[in-house]
Amino acid sequence: MSDATTTDLYEVTMAMSYLREGMTAPATFSLFVRDLPPGRGFLIAAGTESALDHLSGLRVGPEDVDAFASALHRPPADLEPLLGMEFTGRVRAVPEGRVVLAGEPLLEVTAPLPQAQLVETYVLSLLSHQTAIASKAVRCVLAAAGHPVVDFSLRRAHGPQAGFQAARLGALTGFAGTSNVAAATALGIPAVGTMAHSYVEAFASEDDAFRAFARCHPGPVTLLVDTYDTEEGVRLAARVLRDLDRGPGSAVRLDSGDLAVLAARARTILDGAALPDVRIVASGGLDEYAVDDLVRSGAPIDTYAVGTRVGVAADAPYLDSAYKMVQFDGRPVMKLSSAKVTSPGPKQVYRRPGRPDVIALADEPAPDGGVALLETVMDKGRRTAEPAALEQSRARCAADLAGLPSAALRIRNPVAPRAMTSERLDALTARVRQGIEDLASHRSVLQP
Amino acid sequence: MSDATTTDLYEVTMAMSYLREGMTAPATFSLFVRDLPPGRGFLIAAGTESALDHLSGLRVGPEDVDAFASALHRPPADLEPLLGMEFTGRVRAVPEGRVVLAGEPLLEVTAPLPQAQLVETYVLSLLSHQTAIASKAVRCVLAAAGHPVVDFSLRRAHGPQAGFQAARLGALTGFAGTSNVAAATALGIPAVGTMAHSYVEAFASEDDAFRAFARCHPGPVTLLVDTYDTEEGVRLAARVLRDLDRGPGSAVRLDSGDLAVLAARARTILDGAALPDVRIVASGGLDEYAVDDLVRSGAPIDTYAVGTRVGVAADAPYLDSAYKMVQFDGRPVMKLSSAKVTSPGPKQVYRRPGRPDVIALADEPAPDGGVALLETVMDKGRRTAEPAALEQSRARCAADLAGLPSAALRIRNPVAPRAMTSERLDALTARVRQGIEDLASHRSVLQP
Repeated sequence: MSDATTTDLYEVTMAMSYLREGMTAPATFSLFVRDLPPGRGFLIAAGTESALDHLSGLRVGPEDVDAFASALHRPPADLEPLLGMEFTGRVRAVPEGRVVLAGEPLLEVTAPLPQAQLVETYVLSLLSHQTAIASKAVRCVLAAAGHPVVDFSLRRAHGPQAGFQAARLGALTGFAGTSNVAAATALGIPAVGTMAHSYVEAFASEDDAFRAFARCHPGPVTLLVDTYDTEEGVRLAARVLRDLDRGPGSAVRLDSGDLAVLAARARTILDGAALPDVRIVASGGLDEYAVDDLVRSGAPIDTYAVGTRVGVAADAPYLDSAYKMVQFDGRPVMKLSSAKVTSPGPKQVYRRPGRPDVIALADEPAPDGGVALLETVMDKGRRTAEPAALEQSRARCAADLAGLPSAALRIRNPVAPRAMTSERLDALTARVRQGIEDLASHRSVLQP
Repeated sequence: MSDATTTDLYEVTMAMSYLREGMTAPATFSLFVRDLPPGRGFLIAAGTESALDHLSGLRVGPEDVDAFASALHRPPADLEPLLGMEFTGRVRAVPEGRVVLAGEPLLEVTAPLPQAQLVETYVLSLLSHQTAIASKAVRCVLAAAGHPVVDFSLRRAHGPQAGFQAARLGALTGFAGTSNVAAATALGIPAVGTMAHSYVEAFASEDDAFRAFARCHPGPVTLLVDTYDTEEGVRLAARVLRDLDRGPGSAVRLDSGDLAVLAARARTILDGAALPDVRIVASGGLDEYAVDDLVRSGAPIDTYAVGTRVGVAADAPYLDSAYKMVQFDGRPVMKLSSAKVTSPGPKQVYRRPGRPDVIALADEPAPDGGVALLETVMDKGRRTAEPAALEQSRARCAADLAGLPSAALRIRNPVAPRAMTSERLDALTARVRQGIEDLASHRSVLQP
């Protein structure tokens, strides 16, 4: 089986029906987040690169057909029309790293209806997950206010793939490093790491442990000082680093207790030992809220290591995302079911300095000073450009952050800017809605 | 690179130092959850099978050594001692599907220290993630009180791997099916699915859509009735199902609005159309709390489809899990750092009918009526038995649930039973702690 089977069954049953009915005209689906989770002033677009990888490689093979048939308890012959299906459509997307707001399409797919439908689950999964994580990670960078932030999330991410993405998305949003060796080496992110409490416990004494570690690792080392008594641990680390002349670039790591208090005492001890260059790394259940508190308290912490809560976006582990058909065979389409109204037509988002974003129809001209967010990234099933380099997405993220109002950037009670909709989009929405309401037969409205 | 590099860098730096120091004596690490998240009365053990797959296949190859060297900015020759390392140790684990409580080891690894350390990140990640999801999923089964629950979580899981696990863990805890084709076919779980709103919108009318779907899919069908006006949708579905004589086994799906009210109206319409066999499926942001409310309200819903919130365990997306060294070279070890005290020595957990579990030392005899939870599942790096079949784990889960007090099973404000510790474990903990506190040098205590 290829990853064509990593899909909801209904994508398959719908695609079968579309093919049977000859409904292969182009459809456009729009992927967006309806509302931001509480605690988010904006989102960082992510997942597009993975989605394009998936779409480029998608091909329904014989073993996929067998899997579909088995899932449906139908003979494989009934699934033959799907055999060999590839994605041949067009994709427009907001590049990874850019700021997006509620209702703004992150990605639009235009392809023959069966294809555009079949890819829903996988694409939605990638963008929802990665955008949720990137939007959490960037808040840690903001909270750290210039101090380096590093990723320690692999051990509690939702599996190895999710751990890899957490490292990648941390780097994309401005982290200085990751503990994840696979991600670090594959993506060129600085790898960071220290030692575990078990390391210290495995030696006859903390002193033995620190000296053995330094013996094995030339250059700067980071010593974990809270296995037994933290202040004693700092004193010991200072002695070892001074004895071995390994101060500059080295660090002590605090992983438990009152980090603000312990960091202040550690700083005093290190400075008293003439080790002003030895840095202090804090870890242990940190997220943007804890980092913000520590930074505001003036704690002399140099580097923040965040993990668990960031790697799973603990306070908002999913987004209210949707992948909705907005046009089929040239006709704008929308949905009216209770509390989940969508708006019709392919769209573009224009960003204007100092003014609200405008969500417009794709074929509208840009408003004054507006720059389009959605770019064509795939045509006829092939990428139109090389995958974006991580550095490029990281630069995009930093640039977009600089353009956000300060209320959106706040760690606590952020205020999310709202995008406007264009007059033409409003008019089309009203027209399509009225058309649906007028039709007692509840037909979807086919605009000319 | 193999998945040997899917690890925190510090596992590598510690392993290098252990090898350099000749510290290759056996170490035992214990993996447990310190405290349950709020809203959990118990956990369901999961992730062991994936962990054993990883350990069986682990081998540090030349490309891994290169990755480690690159991450550390050291010549590959410095990493040579790791080349060819495999996992040759012993693993004892609680079988998947069993109930576990705070502090009870889910898994214990005994292996030469460098190996036991190197596998920490990956094993901890698998068990933490999968146990968190299984412990959420099982609560949906409890809330549904006998109604079938099915998994729709793939689109918002943290990537395809996490989506696969959500489907597997749902089935393990009692779900009746999944929409995930890959998981369904790989694991023999019933595949379930209906249609999306876009399907209905793609046709000129809802009636056309329902009839086209039925044309393509013989046998029972599930029709999504809330694309426009839900009650009208139900009436139309009833007409189509009656016209085509497709009532028995078929269903209507409600995906928005007040599900209790709409289900009652749908039932009235279906019964009025002489379709008492047509079932009602509810979906749309459901979790165990919503399912509990619906079941208690007496809503005539037959099947509950849960997705997003369950697939990411939204209210508790991570566990306070730990992988701690408890013995090295025959000596019990523990850690005393602020608020994160561990207890020393390899352990066993004994379950006793109607009485609290007992966490004991591994070599203690079973208390009266106590059955051991930890079983040897790997020896000398090889599985000691075939992987557990899903059906077997599912049966274990159901049996263990039956043994829990009702307060633990409650959906709201559950009360988690607490395990006792044995007298011998308490005595050892006190002895090791006293030893550490007595030693001004902060050496870990080496019990005879």
